[in-house]
Amino acid sequence: MADVGGGLGLTNDWTAGFLRVRTLEEAKRLLEEHWRPKPSVAEVPLERAGGRILAEDVVSRVDLPPFDRAAVDGYAVRAADTFGADEETPIELLCVGRIRAGDWPKLRVGRGRCAEIATGAPMPRGADAVVMVEHAIAEKNAVRVYRAVAPGENVVQRASEVKRGEVVLPAGRRLTPQLIGTLAAVGVGRVKVFERPRVAVISSGAELTRPGGRLGRGKVYDINGPAICEAVRTCGCEPVYLGIVRDEPARVRSAIEKGLASCEVVIISGGSSAGRGDLVPNVVSDMGEPGLLVHGLAMKPGKPTFVAVVSGKPVFGLPGYPVSAFMVFDQLVAPYLRELAGDRQVKRERAVARLSRRILSAKGRRELVPVKLLRRDGELLAEPLLKGSGAITSLSMADGYIEVPLGREMVEEGEIVEVVIFGGADVA
Amino acid sequence: MADVGGGLGLTNDWTAGFLRVRTLEEAKRLLEEHWRPKPSVAEVPLERAGGRILAEDVVSRVDLPPFDRAAVDGYAVRAADTFGADEETPIELLCVGRIRAGDWPKLRVGRGRCAEIATGAPMPRGADAVVMVEHAIAEKNAVRVYRAVAPGENVVQRASEVKRGEVVLPAGRRLTPQLIGTLAAVGVGRVKVFERPRVAVISSGAELTRPGGRLGRGKVYDINGPAICEAVRTCGCEPVYLGIVRDEPARVRSAIEKGLASCEVVIISGGSSAGRGDLVPNVVSDMGEPGLLVHGLAMKPGKPTFVAVVSGKPVFGLPGYPVSAFMVFDQLVAPYLRELAGDRQVKRERAVARLSRRILSAKGRRELVPVKLLRRDGELLAEPLLKGSGAITSLSMADGYIEVPLGREMVEEGEIVEVVIFGGADVA
Repeated sequence: MADVGGGLGLTNDWTAGFLRVRTLEEAKRLLEEHWRPKPSVAEVPLERAGGRILAEDVVSRVDLPPFDRAAVDGYAVRAADTFGADEETPIELLCVGRIRAGDWPKLRVGRGRCAEIATGAPMPRGADAVVMVEHAIAEKNAVRVYRAVAPGENVVQRASEVKRGEVVLPAGRRLTPQLIGTLAAVGVGRVKVFERPRVAVISSGAELTRPGGRLGRGKVYDINGPAICEAVRTCGCEPVYLGIVRDEPARVRSAIEKGLASCEVVIISGGSSAGRGDLVPNVVSDMGEPGLLVHGLAMKPGKPTFVAVVSGKPVFGLPGYPVSAFMVFDQLVAPYLRELAGDRQVKRERAVARLSRRILSAKGRRELVPVKLLRRDGELLAEPLLKGSGAITSLSMADGYIEVPLGREMVEEGEIVEVVIFGGADVA
Repeated sequence: MADVGGGLGLTNDWTAGFLRVRTLEEAKRLLEEHWRPKPSVAEVPLERAGGRILAEDVVSRVDLPPFDRAAVDGYAVRAADTFGADEETPIELLCVGRIRAGDWPKLRVGRGRCAEIATGAPMPRGADAVVMVEHAIAEKNAVRVYRAVAPGENVVQRASEVKRGEVVLPAGRRLTPQLIGTLAAVGVGRVKVFERPRVAVISSGAELTRPGGRLGRGKVYDINGPAICEAVRTCGCEPVYLGIVRDEPARVRSAIEKGLASCEVVIISGGSSAGRGDLVPNVVSDMGEPGLLVHGLAMKPGKPTFVAVVSGKPVFGLPGYPVSAFMVFDQLVAPYLRELAGDRQVKRERAVARLSRRILSAKGRRELVPVKLLRRDGELLAEPLLKGSGAITSLSMADGYIEVPLGREMVEEGEIVEVVIFGGADVA
């Protein structure tokens, strides 16, 4: 049907203004024909590497430990000298010195001799075992040994943990405190990690006001700007909030150009519904090849979504409604951002639960329904939150969502469903 | 038995030098008699509140939505005017203007009139429903309506989502992207969150070299400094690394004083084993009341641990061995740090697995055994990593640990065990 609406560019054809409604999988395939996430690498000092993803195989430049060292406090001895020693018949050795941790021993332990040694201190030449302090008594320079030791006993051999040249950690691992410890152990002071890609976030709409500002008549606060910025951050990227733009072509174009100049990805929300005259997608169409690739997603919520590639970088257009924007971000945008941040091993947390009441779904669209998880009689229940895609408060209560596939029109009360858990949700 | 060791202060009594070996629970009780974590509150802008924990109940200062608004693109009408309209007998209304999102309509919709309206735009006076654009055809100023609407249809009523004065989020919640969106929705520009407490981290030992530096003879790299700093960070605190101090009383005291002056908690590792002459705990003992509260923990690894309160702040002394330090941090220190950071709802992730081989444990000590989780034949197996407490690489492979209680000497192969998962571990 032709566009016979008034000045708002209203149209009464559900699909008019949309290129062609695409499934999520089609949308991804079309995008990937023109763009693939390529993570960049940065070198950072160890103290700032925590939580980052390793971009190189780390090879040890040292043996660990770097020398034979005492595993306990005691006396470094020649094991052969202690053979036969026991509680009844101790063997007496002459103590020729002491070695603290951090010392480099110059002394040598000859036959019939020993040296006092602290845990972690290097073994002196000549000695090949340590008698634990609990098994010896010292009086002046004479040490009586009450238990025999075997060669190597209570000694940690050089390179027994890590050999110089060995790979201690492979690229791709997220640096937990333990792995930071492992890098420290082999002396790594700086390490290559994947860069946190910069992602521009723009909110479009004449009705939007920045939170904290005074709300004029007819205005609402911008929800998507702050929420999408934080969602970008949880994907390991650095959000660059370019603020609110009125839905006027020149302003929208200028904001997107600013985003493309300084960031790897641009996300703009609002202004892409057909009812608004396709303002943002039209602007993007004029910004060069290949331009607009997808306009309209067969997903509920989420239809007024677009995907474009401009200047070799992706521009994602999210719906203006916050719940829709959030769901499209989660399904379409977030996986690319995580990959761009070098995180290939993301496993989405999922829970299996019983649906607390029936959901009716639109045929021919994949539907995402936010749910709250409750524990009742020892069983996990998924309670659908059906307040509509404008209601951000339904997301504040949601622990995750269930996906109703394209072909289904209903999920029955009591059915077992899989819930995709939102990051950071406290699941009871 | 008396201390008859040489200059290292060696002693052959396992408990000598320790005040009295305490269980973890006793140690916590003794500490809590003198100190309880008290979180502080900071006000931050919304864009820096993500991931933080809300320190106040957030009350909305606005109605949400702030006005009656159109839920769809279409025509604002008096519902009564549309009664009886259907495909066969449309009703014609006179269009008196248009209202965009962000506008504040001055027009009034009288009987027989309508106004073009965009999704999210405020309803004009007189109108009480919206006819979807799909159910109308406009020609110049005449709009033919093909379906009747009920009063309130396609209108989101003012305050239907949130009422002014209503609590939208309670204190204590961690601010996920969705909750940042909720705060934005009610116009919050700055929000009270719990402060990230500063925690001083000190490594003591003459043998230690900072990672990245050249390793002199007899030296090893400092593992605990970087690893504990990162562990502190994952507890929601800000680590302040005060570096490596030689184990000399004046230097140790000066470093601890520096930590107490600038931080809420001091953590020092190394130098607390009995074999080193109790240097660090002795220094702490001299620093004022109540001083040293616990010295010696009935936990393996972890015996050479101390707990003190100086100048009203806790000083935790961790063992020098990295695995021991890490385990004591996890069990004893981390819960206090999280509470100090306002995080009361920490749920440790746990997995149930089958033990892959027998573990022998010391009687009278609680033992913590690092394990790797493997999936074999669809079952989760816990593989003990028994490389000893000096081996940081065993932690780099560990997904978590199992706790063998005080009274048990053995856990059999094939037994079902509960694994405490380390934060950030990728569990297969």
